[in-house]
Order: sequence, then structure tokens, then C-alpha cells
Amino acid sequence: MPNLQFWYEFASTYSYLSAMRIEPLAAAAGVSIEYRPFLLGPIFHAQGWNTSPFNIYPAKGRYMARDIARMAEERGIPFAMPPGFPQNSLMAARVALVGCDEGWVAPFTRAVFSAQFAEGAQIADRQVLQRIVRNLDLDFERILSAIEAPDIKDRLKRQTAEAQALGLFGAPSFVTSLGEVFWGDDRLEQALAWARRS
Amino acid sequence: MPNLQFWYEFASTYSYLSAMRIEPLAAAAGVSIEYRPFLLGPIFHAQGWNTSPFNIYPAKGRYMARDIARMAEERGIPFAMPPGFPQNSLMAARVALVGCDEGWVAPFTRAVFSAQFAEGAQIADRQVLQRIVRNLDLDFERILSAIEAPDIKDRLKRQTAEAQALGLFGAPSFVTSLGEVFWGDDRLEQALAWARRS
Repeated sequence: MPNLQFWYEFASTYSYLSAMRIEPLAAAAGVSIEYRPFLLGPIFHAQGWNTSPFNIYPAKGRYMARDIARMAEERGIPFAMPPGFPQNSLMAARVALVGCDEGWVAPFTRAVFSAQFAEGAQIADRQVLQRIVRNLDLDFERILSAIEAPDIKDRLKRQTAEAQALGLFGAPSFVTSLGEVFWGDDRLEQALAWARRS
Repeated sequence: MPNLQFWYEFASTYSYLSAMRIEPLAAAAGVSIEYRPFLLGPIFHAQGWNTSPFNIYPAKGRYMARDIARMAEERGIPFAMPPGFPQNSLMAARVALVGCDEGWVAPFTRAVFSAQFAEGAQIADRQVLQRIVRNLDLDFERILSAIEAPDIKDRLKRQTAEAQALGLFGAPSFVTSLGEVFWGDDRLEQALAWARRS
């Protein structure tokens, strides 16, 4: 089965749009999705930015909020800008890496995005993550120990470095097994079509 | 007939993609297109940029070239990055304003984009513009006098200031008669659908 890497950042609004539709689209295309959570912070930092470009360039930020609201309405999913943007996604990304190993990354990812962009929750809040993890019938204490071990911390750093090495500069991004890179929720269908050709 | 403003910059690769398809899409949607050439330079400058963000952020620039090449191939139009990017689009934009008054802006716009992104020509080159204008059966000397008059120069400045006042920060952008703004070739279909509702 052809494969497509889904590179996403939990604080990213456009990653939310893709996370909420990638599974049915991938199933219809016969492509399997490899979840690749990473952090945009270090990549933005390397470009000289200390926050999201949507904060640095206010006209772009205002447009983004309106654009996402329109797209979400068209797709029948809820959306509200959460208090505080971008949120700190470090803990959620580490938990997602545990989910990659254990097979629950897809529902965890959707739940984190929904908590943030549909319910306005703070995803850096331990209690928010606890609720999400327990709703997946998982042991939160066990996962907390796992993400505090050096292994997961290092893997998230390596994954972010790999994103940078691939030339990724935003999220979501999609990478086929032949290394073809697509950026943005708007390119998801095209990325799936290219993955099928790979 | 509902109306949609098409805000574009002649040096912009994504504006090329839209210019080459907007007329048939608009005709099918029953929407009339109002051509609004403007300059991104002053808008970028106000954000602290002295060139295109595709030059300032090389990973983004490399991605853009690949993305446009894939989209152009999919749509069956030629594309090659011209020597020198972004090109100086001042003279072409001024001529386009004359075309707005005289009804030939649409074919002129497509011809300028094709010269630049299909044939690799320099659109700041007077001979290139002369050839384009003559192919439209127009008198180049008369148009040269028109664009050297203060009226056209001022109008281009005002049009660029209007783009900024609308919150535009990139090209192409599309604005409905109710002021709904869409950014990017990817939003052309959605912008046309919203224009129909206006």
C-alpha cells in the first residue's frame, strides 16, 4: 500500500483542517498515512521568527482566521480561534510520538485538534491531555512517564530536525516515499494522488 | 451579473496560475472579473521585506518553484522560472491600467504572464511589452505616452494603497462586492462561489 507522511504541528490551524479529513481521503485513495508530529517553533526560530508568522504579520493573521472559519464551515466542522495563539504544543507532540508506537496516534491527534480549535481548550494543560488520553482508554500516568524519558524527548528533536532537512517550513506538509513535498491543506488531494504513483 | 475583483502582481508566479484560468472559470460561474493590477513591492516593504519572501526564505522559494511546476503540468500550461525573480513589473502594471480603461486588459495580462513564465522574457524590457501590445493590434507609442502621464502613475499608486487598505498581503487575491477577501490561486473557485452569493 502506498504511503504518505503527514507532517503536522498541533498549534497549526491548517494542520487542524487536514487532521480532520485525512483518514477518509487516504482510505478512498488507498494510501496509508504515517503521522509525523513535529514542532514549527525551532524552524521559525531558524528563520529569525520568535512566534507564528500570523502574529508577526497581522494582516496575514486576520486573513487566516477568516479563511479557516470559511473552510471549516464549508466542511461542517466547528472552529474558533483558541485563547492564545500559537499554543505550546510540546507535550501533545511528545504524547503523539508514544501514540505512533502504540497505534493510537490518529484518534489522539484529532482529539487534541478538536479540544483546541473546536472547544478552545489549552493543549499544554495537563488536565486537558489527561481527559483526551483517558477517553482513548489509555493510562495517563504510564504515558506521562514515557514522555518524560529521554527517548521520546530526543525523538521529537530528531523528528523536527528531519522536517528541517526535508525543507519543510510550515504545516501541514505531506511527503511521498519518493520525497515529493506538498505544503498546505490545499495540497492534500494532490499529495495523495502522487503517493499512489510512487 | 455578480462581480469579483482579481488583484494580481505581474511578478507573481501564483498570479500567473490564476490569470491563465480565471476567464473560463468566471464564465462558467456567471461572474464578471474586474482586473486590479497592483504592486506587491510597497506592501512587502511595509512589512520590512526588500524582496519577495521566496528569496528571503529559500526553502519556501524552492518549494514554490516545484509547486508551480507541478500545478502547471497538471493544468497543461508551460512554466519555467524566469531569469531574475521577482521581475520589475512597474511598466507592465501601468500598461494594464490603460488596458482596464480600453477593454484589453485580460488578453494583455495573459500575454505578459506567458512571456515571463512560459518564454522566460523580461517584462521590464520595453521591446517585450512592445511585441505584446502590437500583437493585440494596439499602438505602442500611444500607450507609452499614456503610461508616462501622471494620471496612470497616480492610479497605480492609489490601487496599491487600496490593496493595502483591503488587508491584501499577497497575490493573487480576490475580493467580492461585499468585501470578502480570498488569497491564493487555490481559493479562486471558492471566491467565485462567494461572488455569486453576493
